[in-house]
Amino acid sequence: MIPHQIRSFLEIWKKLPGLGPRAATRLAFFIANMKAEERHALREALAGLDAMDACPECFSLKEEDRSVCAICGNTERKRDLVAVVEKNTDIITLERAREFQGTYLILGDLGTNGILEEHHRKRMEHLKKRIEKEKGTIKEVILAMGPNALSDMVYEMLKRDLSPLGVSVTRLGRGIPTGGEIEFADEETLKSALRRRM
Amino acid sequence: MIPHQIRSFLEIWKKLPGLGPRAATRLAFFIANMKAEERHALREALAGLDAMDACPECFSLKEEDRSVCAICGNTERKRDLVAVVEKNTDIITLERAREFQGTYLILGDLGTNGILEEHHRKRMEHLKKRIEKEKGTIKEVILAMGPNALSDMVYEMLKRDLSPLGVSVTRLGRGIPTGGEIEFADEETLKSALRRRM
Repeated sequence: MIPHQIRSFLEIWKKLPGLGPRAATRLAFFIANMKAEERHALREALAGLDAMDACPECFSLKEEDRSVCAICGNTERKRDLVAVVEKNTDIITLERAREFQGTYLILGDLGTNGILEEHHRKRMEHLKKRIEKEKGTIKEVILAMGPNALSDMVYEMLKRDLSPLGVSVTRLGRGIPTGGEIEFADEETLKSALRRRM
Repeated sequence: MIPHQIRSFLEIWKKLPGLGPRAATRLAFFIANMKAEERHALREALAGLDAMDACPECFSLKEEDRSVCAICGNTERKRDLVAVVEKNTDIITLERAREFQGTYLILGDLGTNGILEEHHRKRMEHLKKRIEKEKGTIKEVILAMGPNALSDMVYEMLKRDLSPLGVSVTRLGRGIPTGGEIEFADEETLKSALRRRM
């Protein structure tokens, strides 16, 4: 009863975050009812995402033809300060607060299963090497994650690994509710949390 | 700070129903972080929606290479009963209740501005012609829309236009809450509303 094109669309698109079967169904019919040129524009925008890869310094997504991302490549940013975040969208929210002037490192989504994965450890190792390579430039690493058991563990690991290199490891001031996510924090809360980092 | 590919994606995708800027941003980064082949599958599924057009009898979306949709082309469906709905997703929800055996007519989303548009009137005219063409086959037209001022008006117009042709015009039994939408009704409510049509 549902045309096979719609079913094929649902099969794949319903797995994306924030969609699910019902939202994907509405989306499928809405898109199928659009004019061909509007649908073409959606497809072009989607195809554009192919021309991206990870910044070798912070792992945020960047235009493929740049060597580093816009933030790592910006000479106005403070080199002595690195914020460790879970994901790209956290950077966007932090940038919106216009308080942080340093650079970033994306550790990867910590997820909900309470386990630190191999790829998280590799990113921490990468940060350590970056600090050693930049010889004394990086003075402070701020853990910009909501407080929970796993980020507490990351904080302790960073302190253990980076303190011997002369780097002070801090985290966002309380103000972020326990279990909360950076991405959904409002700008004022973020400003105060950046100013009152512990 | 946000790569231009992501910005181009947001510009277009944030306008789709159920997305909005924040959800579209998460979606963009999620997709950009997927493997190239997974992204390719999303694009293929999206492109598949091009090969669809409207059924000439009921206006629901159908595979381009069929002459009518799967329901209008199904000889097991009752030809004497037509349900008038707002949109394709309403048909899916009604079919899930497994109670209605007739065919459909999609009138188009009635929207929220309380005005019956020209394209709604054209669909009603189309239904009238279909009834005349099928000479006495169609005995009953059920208005399958939640009760509100505009659907009440559609009901009165259908009664006025179709009663002289010997067609009884009914609507779903109360059970659908006033102002509610067909698409979100549960199956039991729909069954009872179909059985108790007025």
